[in-house]
Amino acid sequence: MLESENEISENDTDELMLSIPEGFSFAGVASGIKKSGNIDLSLVVADDKCSAFGVFTQNMIRASSVDWNRNRIGSARGIVINSGNANACTGEQGEHDTESMARELADQIGCELNDVLVMSTGIIGEMLPMENVTSGIVAAFGQLQNNENAFDLAAQGMMTTDKFCKVSSTEFAVGGTTYSVLGMAKGAGMIGPKMATMLCVLLTDFPLAASDEHNTAFKHAIDQSFNCISVDGHTSTSDQVVLLANSTGGSDGKSLPESNHEFFNQLTAVCIDLAKKIPSDGEGATHLISIQVSGPQRESELALVAKTIADSPLVKTAVFGGDPNWGRIVSAAGYSGIAFEPNETSLRVNGFLLFEKGTPVDFDEKEVSTSIKDNTDTEIELQIGVPKNSAQFWTSDLTYEYVKINAEYHT
Amino acid sequence: MLESENEISENDTDELMLSIPEGFSFAGVASGIKKSGNIDLSLVVADDKCSAFGVFTQNMIRASSVDWNRNRIGSARGIVINSGNANACTGEQGEHDTESMARELADQIGCELNDVLVMSTGIIGEMLPMENVTSGIVAAFGQLQNNENAFDLAAQGMMTTDKFCKVSSTEFAVGGTTYSVLGMAKGAGMIGPKMATMLCVLLTDFPLAASDEHNTAFKHAIDQSFNCISVDGHTSTSDQVVLLANSTGGSDGKSLPESNHEFFNQLTAVCIDLAKKIPSDGEGATHLISIQVSGPQRESELALVAKTIADSPLVKTAVFGGDPNWGRIVSAAGYSGIAFEPNETSLRVNGFLLFEKGTPVDFDEKEVSTSIKDNTDTEIELQIGVPKNSAQFWTSDLTYEYVKINAEYHT
Repeated sequence: MLESENEISENDTDELMLSIPEGFSFAGVASGIKKSGNIDLSLVVADDKCSAFGVFTQNMIRASSVDWNRNRIGSARGIVINSGNANACTGEQGEHDTESMARELADQIGCELNDVLVMSTGIIGEMLPMENVTSGIVAAFGQLQNNENAFDLAAQGMMTTDKFCKVSSTEFAVGGTTYSVLGMAKGAGMIGPKMATMLCVLLTDFPLAASDEHNTAFKHAIDQSFNCISVDGHTSTSDQVVLLANSTGGSDGKSLPESNHEFFNQLTAVCIDLAKKIPSDGEGATHLISIQVSGPQRESELALVAKTIADSPLVKTAVFGGDPNWGRIVSAAGYSGIAFEPNETSLRVNGFLLFEKGTPVDFDEKEVSTSIKDNTDTEIELQIGVPKNSAQFWTSDLTYEYVKINAEYHT
Repeated sequence: MLESENEISENDTDELMLSIPEGFSFAGVASGIKKSGNIDLSLVVADDKCSAFGVFTQNMIRASSVDWNRNRIGSARGIVINSGNANACTGEQGEHDTESMARELADQIGCELNDVLVMSTGIIGEMLPMENVTSGIVAAFGQLQNNENAFDLAAQGMMTTDKFCKVSSTEFAVGGTTYSVLGMAKGAGMIGPKMATMLCVLLTDFPLAASDEHNTAFKHAIDQSFNCISVDGHTSTSDQVVLLANSTGGSDGKSLPESNHEFFNQLTAVCIDLAKKIPSDGEGATHLISIQVSGPQRESELALVAKTIADSPLVKTAVFGGDPNWGRIVSAAGYSGIAFEPNETSLRVNGFLLFEKGTPVDFDEKEVSTSIKDNTDTEIELQIGVPKNSAQFWTSDLTYEYVKINAEYHT
């Protein structure tokens, strides 16, 4: 099942009932990379070789794990993930360390080196403590299990400044067979979409062959979800979203082209659910801000308007302050570079009409302010002309705590 | 003279010795628009009709004063400026009020309505208290003077959340005659360049005819200065930069085409000096961050890299925290959309080499941190390949105070 709407809470995984596909096992251990002693090394291992799909950061400065995976995506048996150290900007030694991580897991599994993917997230520019990493992989491999608890530990092993674990799953039936899509993602800073955002692992037992067509459909799912969020607009060096399909579902594991459409709908729903959790848990965030922009413009243009509003520190601080500051929202739309007619522009915040056809409406400021303050979700709906198309974007508010976290950042 | 480097101080105008061109007079009064009782209404009046040049915000949502001036630029006798209320998003009544402001000053001067320009800055979406504005114009007109004190009062009348008054001037001689360029500008929030940024008035006695060529040169000066700054990347509804040239300098007031080049150099220097004062006094700022990017790329591409670094909240909070976080700077460059070779990338902060040819340098973190903390200016120099061209950008750090000002904003 898809989880219900996000809530900003310490840990919302307690009551989860995830749908765990067969044929994958998981583990997460504390290997000592994080000085805190928290879980920092995770494994996802498939019983058999899977189709593997990936979307990677477009930053020119890329972590070596991103380059490793880009060159190997297509099939995979396992993923080794560490947090606490991004292994980015670490030169040749960093590349060597990425390969060593993959080799250690390949040795444990007994599979080809090229069938292991690597993900690293955390501080940039420091060398990985490889002794910890290697013994962590061995320890985690001994704890692999196909259940929700093990998956939860693996998801915890991706976390950096995240306050809660980000997992989601769904089940759907086609042709009398039930399939699962399961995913885990991490935030919480350096979140600015540029084709891929942050680490995310998606798993399914749906029989999906590696193909250009499926790659395109996968990228579309990412465009509708992880590419529609930001916390600070800063695209990370380490972003990757990876999907493994092990085809264990169904009677014969054969491809089911007629139901691919339903699969990608379900995948997109899981991606959106995970994606929204990231700004919900954005560094220092007290609000998830959902921005919907509609108008006669193209969807990509409406998305740019929504993103421009999402990236405005003035809009983000206004939401933090419970200030129904329609002027900041409307003027942010105005500098997005997309043409629209101010006199056909209207705005609602949490359902309250604040601005109609280019003119501020007489509204009860206190009532709207209370609505912002009393809810962790703020809904901004902007209409810039006749609403033929629409686009969504999600972001966090900008708070004292965001400044504190990032002015005083240490491992 | 051009003032020396910016310093962030309560008020650095005390010791100014500005060069005031003949033929212009100034006043600033408290008309009651601002509840604080501070000066909020200013006049700049020329003895005779001037050539007038303007650059205006490209925001789709524009204050009525911007539209008024766009349609009238070319010549001018006077400018009426108010702060505390931007008269933006105020519909037909707002347009009517802008015209009334111009009419009142035109009546006082005894000039054509079309020769009066209007600037308004402050809160968006509220109606101007026109009784205060009108009586303020009459009062200010009675106090017009051609001296530094009067100019300083006029500059104060533009201020909103500014902590100090932003003025600059220079003198230069061509053909045995000395000319002046004098300017005033305001910050301090909603600063994101899009062809023009914030209110600025520039005055000169240099004989400069209104022409397409001079317009282009004027825009180039703005591109080198006000378009190279940001505080929060949020382009205002009210941005305008206006230059009046009254041709009172020189023996006969005729145009001096051979010395135009020198004039525009001087104008650019005054614009840069004023522009840098804006992020120096950015809302909540404790540091002016100067970013220079050099490489073989085109200047416009290098400028985009510099702007991307300037807009990163992670870079801005790191500077606030005194953190020499080269990873955030280099990775921000990486997502600017401009191609470069990571292995040819080097970075200095306050002169310290932190990153060289794609690899972090072993540096004394405490020494660099102290250098950031002990200086109000932070110099970031990034080289992304062989330094054939370069571009500059200036911004503020992101602080608790920025969040406080904007989460608790009231008139």
